[in-house]
Amino acid sequence: MLANSSNLITAKELQISAWINSDAPLTISGLKGKIVVIHAFQMLCPGCVSHGIPQTVAIEQLYRDNESVQIIGLHTVFEHHQVMTLDALRAFVGEYRISFPVAVDQASQDHAIPKTMAAYELQGTPSLIIIDQYGYVRLKHFGRISDMQVGSIIGSLLAQGYDAEIDKKNNAIVKESTGANCDEQGCAI
Amino acid sequence: MLANSSNLITAKELQISAWINSDAPLTISGLKGKIVVIHAFQMLCPGCVSHGIPQTVAIEQLYRDNESVQIIGLHTVFEHHQVMTLDALRAFVGEYRISFPVAVDQASQDHAIPKTMAAYELQGTPSLIIIDQYGYVRLKHFGRISDMQVGSIIGSLLAQGYDAEIDKKNNAIVKESTGANCDEQGCAI
Amino acid sequence: MLANSSNLITAKELQISAWINSDAPLTISGLKGKIVVIHAFQMLCPGCVSHGIPQTVAIEQLYRDNESVQIIGLHTVFEHHQVMTLDALRAFVGEYRISFPVAVDQASQDHAIPKTMAAYELQGTPSLIIIDQYGYVRLKHFGRISDMQVGSIIGSLLAQGYDAEIDKKNNAIVKESTGANCDEQGCAI
Amino acid sequence: MLANSSNLITAKELQISAWINSDAPLTISGLKGKIVVIHAFQMLCPGCVSHGIPQTVAIEQLYRDNESVQIIGLHTVFEHHQVMTLDALRAFVGEYRISFPVAVDQASQDHAIPKTMAAYELQGTPSLIIIDQYGYVRLKHFGRISDMQVGSIIGSLLAQGYDAEIDKKNNAIVKESTGANCDEQGCAI
Repeated sequence: MLANSSNLITAKELQISAWINSDAPLTISGLKGKIVVIHAFQMLCPGCVSHGIPQTVAIEQLYRDNESVQIIGLHTVFEHHQVMTLDALRAFVGEYRISFPVAVDQASQDHAIPKTMAAYELQGTPSLIIIDQYGYVRLKHFGRISDMQVGSIIGSLLAQGYDAEIDKKNNAIVKESTGANCDEQGCAI
Repeated sequence: MLANSSNLITAKELQISAWINSDAPLTISGLKGKIVVIHAFQMLCPGCVSHGIPQTVAIEQLYRDNESVQIIGLHTVFEHHQVMTLDALRAFVGEYRISFPVAVDQASQDHAIPKTMAAYELQGTPSLIIIDQYGYVRLKHFGRISDMQVGSIIGSLLAQGYDAEIDKKNNAIVKESTGANCDEQGCAI
Repeated sequence: MLANSSNLITAKELQISAWINSDAPLTISGLKGKIVVIHAFQMLCPGCVSHGIPQTVAIEQLYRDNESVQIIGLHTVFEHHQVMTLDALRAFVGEYRISFPVAVDQASQDHAIPKTMAAYELQGTPSLIIIDQYGYVRLKHFGRISDMQVGSIIGSLLAQGYDAEIDKKNNAIVKESTGANCDEQGCAI
Repeated sequence: MLANSSNLITAKELQISAWINSDAPLTISGLKGKIVVIHAFQMLCPGCVSHGIPQTVAIEQLYRDNESVQIIGLHTVFEHHQVMTLDALRAFVGEYRISFPVAVDQASQDHAIPKTMAAYELQGTPSLIIIDQYGYVRLKHFGRISDMQVGSIIGSLLAQGYDAEIDKKNNAIVKESTGANCDEQGCAI
């Protein structure tokens, strides 16, 4: 049970150069009140294509009718920049019939690693980030993670719910008695 | 969000003739305060062996260190009674290295369907039953169900937590603001 | 390429106490001219149920219309004898919808290991035995083996064909130029 | 059994613009005496990535030490030409750790479909082509095909062997008594 949010890290804002499957840009601040599930991937990353993308599609299918959950694909290119272009990504999204919003992580002028990926200190792709309704990072996982564990974390956050008053008043105190035991490493079960 | 428990069905007590992997009999009433996950199976049911048992093992592994979750295998023999004996079940449990408690549903004198299975009105095997900490049935599912959905329901109930005072005072009011939308058909997401 | 059969072991005769899915007993000698694929299993062996049986069903489906291939399931009980009875096996065969002939390996009076299993010196279950049209053992494999490798061996033997004259004349010389390189360890590719 | 080759189609020559993982270009005529397995794919084709490429890798692993089998990946781009470039393919081959030779099908000036794909009249990707040691097409399959069936065809052709004298003398008569029953639709089992 979370007594306070002192151990939680506030989710950084996304830095995005283009969106696919979204009329307008999405922002972490604009999604307050929703659980935000971000799948960081590269289209030429085998583990992303074989496990990460299918798992994200499964998340989308399970919570399709739940307005409290927002899925975002984040294309975090840190190698082969010259071939993983926006046009290539569009073709990829079309061929894989991905229907959730996909954001292109803004390239850095100085480093191979793009800006959002750097801000979140991701270790690589695939990575899964889950942000709660109050804007705290509840999971940041590199590599494979079981569907059951992902469901357990999202279910836990859905049950926690969102109280705009609490958020407004304090913007620092996560609602008590959530039953979840989460820190920046993820939610312990 | 559950305003009250008027739509929820109270879990019936188990009627068991033998236990494997448990020193003492487990009861629904004695497990108040815990989430009870019951996998109803038959050792000669192909879907149970290929999907139900492995999923139950996965549930046990994910929540192994969580004392709020109790897994029970329920051997609900409704056909081939003469060969799915207690001895055969013991061999099965040993060969499949099942470590959670397994209960033998009490045979009926009059019907092929054993007593607990009849009381829960199960449609067949495999079936998955999830009972919350207050003793209400939150899921009763016949056939295959995704790991993500199972995780989502258990995670939701874990976040709901358990307040013995509420349980004592009312024994009818489920804690508010769980975020879950559950009835006897299961938890809507 | 096989210059002669000096390295090949002649398949021992089956010692069977009962047959399921076969009107009459099958024998190795009576199946001369056919490729005989024997899947040795136990109904309470997890690896048999999860991989061995499905692979054998796949073999049967691929070669269903080919009269040169005979599939046999061999129930080689070497533990839990008291519960893996003929009645239990009948229920198992029915529930798993197995349509190929299943033979019960004859129990030994003196040992846990049944007679055919002992004669073939099998290491355990699941085991796959492939016998060519001339009665020589071409594969004896304990544990998991890939579908592709099984297909490759059967395809190789099918291409070798069968010449009853050769078989009669010599009963020791395997037709030359088969392209296969097989000994008692199996067929090298 | 093949009485003659009158029903078999001679494999057309490859028309290739670039090779990856091969020091020199490979040709159908130059591979006479070997079984040639061609996996036609596109890097943005989901079925190719999930099933076709892994199956081709499995073929390569099973027959790695067999000099009679040559695997070729054929990148037959017929859509998204502007993003499935040679550079992108190089990155793909590297990320997926593909070690067999990969050929880029020569683009047509007039049509979306590249030249080799058109010559073989492929229906799409993934497609699997198997050419025997005499240069005849034994399988041309669009979509998914089981590992067991692929193994059976290759095993059958390996057993058929290759006789350069026969090939030279006639260049039209496939060695008799192969036991395989193949036409342009593939090898019947």
